[in-house]
Amino acid sequence: MSQDIARRIVLAAHPRGLPTAQDFRLEEVPMPAPDEGQVLLSTLYLSLDPYMRNLMDKVGPVYAEAVGLGAPMVGGTVGRVVASRHPGFQAGELVLGNAGWQSHALSDGSDLVRLGDVEQPSLALGGLGMPGFTAYVGLLDIGRPRPGDTVVVAAASGAVGSVVGQLAKLKGARAIGIASGADKCRQVVEELGFDACLDRREPDLAARLAAVCPDGIDVYFENVGGEVFDAVLPLLNIGARMPVCGVIAHYNDEAPPAGPDRLPGAMAAILQKRIRVQGFVILDHYADRYDAFRREMGQWVAEGRIKLREDVVEGLEAAPEAFIGLLQGRNHGKLVVRVAAD
Amino acid sequence: MSQDIARRIVLAAHPRGLPTAQDFRLEEVPMPAPDEGQVLLSTLYLSLDPYMRNLMDKVGPVYAEAVGLGAPMVGGTVGRVVASRHPGFQAGELVLGNAGWQSHALSDGSDLVRLGDVEQPSLALGGLGMPGFTAYVGLLDIGRPRPGDTVVVAAASGAVGSVVGQLAKLKGARAIGIASGADKCRQVVEELGFDACLDRREPDLAARLAAVCPDGIDVYFENVGGEVFDAVLPLLNIGARMPVCGVIAHYNDEAPPAGPDRLPGAMAAILQKRIRVQGFVILDHYADRYDAFRREMGQWVAEGRIKLREDVVEGLEAAPEAFIGLLQGRNHGKLVVRVAAD
Repeated sequence: MSQDIARRIVLAAHPRGLPTAQDFRLEEVPMPAPDEGQVLLSTLYLSLDPYMRNLMDKVGPVYAEAVGLGAPMVGGTVGRVVASRHPGFQAGELVLGNAGWQSHALSDGSDLVRLGDVEQPSLALGGLGMPGFTAYVGLLDIGRPRPGDTVVVAAASGAVGSVVGQLAKLKGARAIGIASGADKCRQVVEELGFDACLDRREPDLAARLAAVCPDGIDVYFENVGGEVFDAVLPLLNIGARMPVCGVIAHYNDEAPPAGPDRLPGAMAAILQKRIRVQGFVILDHYADRYDAFRREMGQWVAEGRIKLREDVVEGLEAAPEAFIGLLQGRNHGKLVVRVAAD
Repeated sequence: MSQDIARRIVLAAHPRGLPTAQDFRLEEVPMPAPDEGQVLLSTLYLSLDPYMRNLMDKVGPVYAEAVGLGAPMVGGTVGRVVASRHPGFQAGELVLGNAGWQSHALSDGSDLVRLGDVEQPSLALGGLGMPGFTAYVGLLDIGRPRPGDTVVVAAASGAVGSVVGQLAKLKGARAIGIASGADKCRQVVEELGFDACLDRREPDLAARLAAVCPDGIDVYFENVGGEVFDAVLPLLNIGARMPVCGVIAHYNDEAPPAGPDRLPGAMAAILQKRIRVQGFVILDHYADRYDAFRREMGQWVAEGRIKLREDVVEGLEAAPEAFIGLLQGRNHGKLVVRVAAD
């Protein structure tokens, strides 16, 4: 690749339902040059996360701006400063930033966090970064598991779910995962230490979930919605907590799904069981809780009490397909794209 | 009426949808006689409340037992002790109790609260009793309105809604009500001091609600569900609170309503707007909060800062029709049945 050319993946079309390869376009553009006060970043790792699907619609979610047609897809990245006209950064420094789906990007430094000399910098996009922080705030601050509680989380082998279950165990609760496929379920139990993990592709999820939750469910960490929610609802205990960080099952919906209408039943359960449902967007919590998270999670990972698993895809051009797979639950662990060798 | 005969209304059939007169049966039975440790109560006022609909189904809600076929309907009552074999109660005392839809009932005293010499004892069934306490806990402890917030409540002329709006005003918030019919709406604004009240029978509720909530909605006190929820949802502000004390619109549903499925849209809004939805059952809160409620609400009512409006129906035999009307929003204020003149 020429030193003068940068590559990027832009939004080519607003997806209808599940995105396809045609909704993205790989472009080559002249290498950007930093103005005074800017740095040029070379992306090493790009994070792929479900929330990005929301940004591809014409109108984005309340918490973030939509990606415009023809604009680069956004995303968290780990990169090296390759040129700096910013007094606070030197060429060669490793930083966490938001270069998006691009081989190179400019930054004014305001969104950059120095990573120093870490062994596995991509973890800053996963368990030690936004997804891990999402699990930490959602489970510990909102879900508040007590010893002996039963915690259920779907996408249990994913970036957020895998940490949710391990944090539940760390707090003395039982952790029940739901994942796609027998391989993932085995890993979730054997490698991550969940008490059980159910394959959502097998029939009778509701009955199988009831069987592994004999004392009901005290915390349901909601990150998928759909049939998992339906299986969880009748098992929730009085006073159960439901942090809501995503509803992946519905990100591709083009219109409200066909009936029956599940809302009245959900509200009746919320009332009768005194359930607390609390939506949260992790951006809100950095100021208050990020320092505590970095300190605690860093220690738990260093001690081996929390294990972080990555699914690394090679090359920026592989990002669209990997992202589409993520929305279908095909990743094993935190999905990152290695954009360039370091 | 003979002194030897007591009257009661029993559940004759589990309703299908909205109850009808045939689901109830008026019976005359021999006057019960108190055993040692019991009192005989003569009912003066019977409270009619929406939660009673839930108890008429074959399987009751989680928080209370279903009424059996042939058993008297349950309910809060104000009555006089007419005979006592209980050392703690004397004949002639006025008590709050749970005699149900009966002219007379026995009690072991454990559920009785002495009312003393009050001017309007039926208020103990309304604004100074369970419905007022529901408004107090739901709005102040869960909804937590701040000065300048916008609070929306439906059934705004009812026992709970009327107090919710007045408490909101007392805390410096704007109070927007929704009620059935122009008469009620006028009363809610002119007598109770709400900032606005919308007639739910008129078309375009969503647009009219948006017009009177230019700064969005910070607290939605959910006591009805249905189309009011749909009108409220898009107007909720980031960080909005939704205490859920009932979903009257759906109490008569025999099965999940037809689609579209409104749950995914609701969950997406809960997530993106960081909404807190909290179900509560007022029975849970007596131990902690009832004393504070009695003290504060008693003072506010005495000072005229909270106005309590009653809809009094004459005679036990009128209870079924009045109750059916309650489920359709036909009452003006707290609905009570005067079972006997004092």
